[in-house]
Amino acid sequence: MTDNKTNLELVAACDSFPYVDITSLPHNEDERSSFYQFLLPGDSRPHGYILPSTVKAMPWTDDFVVRHERPRTVQLLDSSKGRDTSNACNAALKKVISNATTSKAFKVLASPLHEDYRIIGANYPVQMERTASSLFGIAHRGAHMTVYTRTPEGMKIWVPRRAPNLFTYPNKLDTTVAGGVKAEHSPWECIVQEADEEASLPESLVRSQARSTGVLTYLAKSGQGDGGEFGLMVPDCIYVFDLEVAEDVICKPKDGEVKEFYLWDVESVKAALSKAEFKTNCAAVMIDFFIRHGIITDENEKDYLEIMSRMHRKLPVPTSSLSA
Amino acid sequence: MTDNKTNLELVAACDSFPYVDITSLPHNEDERSSFYQFLLPGDSRPHGYILPSTVKAMPWTDDFVVRHERPRTVQLLDSSKGRDTSNACNAALKKVISNATTSKAFKVLASPLHEDYRIIGANYPVQMERTASSLFGIAHRGAHMTVYTRTPEGMKIWVPRRAPNLFTYPNKLDTTVAGGVKAEHSPWECIVQEADEEASLPESLVRSQARSTGVLTYLAKSGQGDGGEFGLMVPDCIYVFDLEVAEDVICKPKDGEVKEFYLWDVESVKAALSKAEFKTNCAAVMIDFFIRHGIITDENEKDYLEIMSRMHRKLPVPTSSLSA
Repeated sequence: MTDNKTNLELVAACDSFPYVDITSLPHNEDERSSFYQFLLPGDSRPHGYILPSTVKAMPWTDDFVVRHERPRTVQLLDSSKGRDTSNACNAALKKVISNATTSKAFKVLASPLHEDYRIIGANYPVQMERTASSLFGIAHRGAHMTVYTRTPEGMKIWVPRRAPNLFTYPNKLDTTVAGGVKAEHSPWECIVQEADEEASLPESLVRSQARSTGVLTYLAKSGQGDGGEFGLMVPDCIYVFDLEVAEDVICKPKDGEVKEFYLWDVESVKAALSKAEFKTNCAAVMIDFFIRHGIITDENEKDYLEIMSRMHRKLPVPTSSLSA
Repeated sequence: MTDNKTNLELVAACDSFPYVDITSLPHNEDERSSFYQFLLPGDSRPHGYILPSTVKAMPWTDDFVVRHERPRTVQLLDSSKGRDTSNACNAALKKVISNATTSKAFKVLASPLHEDYRIIGANYPVQMERTASSLFGIAHRGAHMTVYTRTPEGMKIWVPRRAPNLFTYPNKLDTTVAGGVKAEHSPWECIVQEADEEASLPESLVRSQARSTGVLTYLAKSGQGDGGEFGLMVPDCIYVFDLEVAEDVICKPKDGEVKEFYLWDVESVKAALSKAEFKTNCAAVMIDFFIRHGIITDENEKDYLEIMSRMHRKLPVPTSSLSA
């Protein structure tokens, strides 16, 4: 039983990028790990950080200027000359990612999802293929909703097991409802849609009863299990929602991403957490749920303070646009 | 109306210390602002950071060794030679603070509370006079509980106004129940006691219905309104609790710290927040409450991500003991 995971270890597995000040590059004199800042037209704030190995392997087009002197930068140019910067950026990103996919430059592009992620905090809408965003160190947006019910025996939580054929984290336990937030969606719209597709929960129930309860942020370093390149800096934002349902509401698989649902009491969920049975970031979502519901407290968790701050890390990319 | 405060401005007023890496001193070549690390016996982790002006004015006893070369340190010695380190540390801190109080060395010691704060994350119990802890840059522990009720017209929140004769933040709005956590108490025990003393809420109600919901952490730079020295680095931990009550439960002043209680709807609380009518850290507690209850969301607050991370800052002092 000595290899049981502590809650802090579970959170640290998400928040796995070292606590160095990546915004004041070079933070590391080692050439191999000094990131390139990714810059959008007309905005001096780095929106991502790119590994030197990625810069080397990417088939950059004329839309990008790569500067190898410090501070190292990859500057996206505005080919529209200010007429439609959004559109020019989106087209340039689409082209370079398409070229990289064709040339098989990166493992992470092996299975493009043909679904775009928004570059958060940009001053105008910009988006890129979801699977490519980690190559650019662009922040990911996810939305997770924990569905639970109160029974005479106490709280019970709906826990899905991921299908065995998924590209990432097959067979792991998951949050009741979870998904990446498409560029054009808000986290709320994502949850309403995923609740139907993944758990067969009616839209009317979710819209009337689900509650936004916060957002987790952490900085990951990609590794084994992520199904792609290692060592990428991946800022992650997980918007969290709660949905308390009556005992007669049943979560059922629908779209094939979930193998089956369990209705577990708190002790069963805790046991599965400590055995690392949850997908990495779903463990953090469950721990946050337990903290907000008074199940994990300062009195029973010695790392309470550290867990809370590491689940809400200040990201090294802008999270709000500069416009009012 | 242009001088209304945004939620981010309210949180930034708490989290007011610059985002520099204070753990890798010297962060600033300016002699006047390069902090001294405060070190406990047998522990290389700095538990606090002391301003040079404080080091100069403090009447250090033989229990302390001050090192002016970098890294600058104030090392507390163990006069018990390991026989009772806790007791030796407590006695040494009590003596130097008593001397400083007698010699009127610091404004912040003008009104000692004769109540001790725990040094969090220490490997053995150590404590010091609450009003002196900010001179040492020791983390403060506070506990805040928001009491609310659901009415046919929507949620209403019990909001107290602080008494006009208080040393800090007179006449400001406050969290329903709040207090500093004494060294010997847990945040939960603090809340149970303060709920009775400040709001006349019965212990049985609080023990059965109150819920631990998280902890806010931020790093403040002391300034005007704090009633003491300026520029001190003050790490703050605010343990937050919710208590939903029936409509017939009434919060009433008892111990003189509260002038009167209001039962306000969400819009009234938001208006008071934007007019900066709340005590600084109580505004952050209210914003956290609104986030957890789905009132402030990513869809209506453009600084949502930044607010969440700044309310959960990783503190530059240890928060867990090294012992298992």
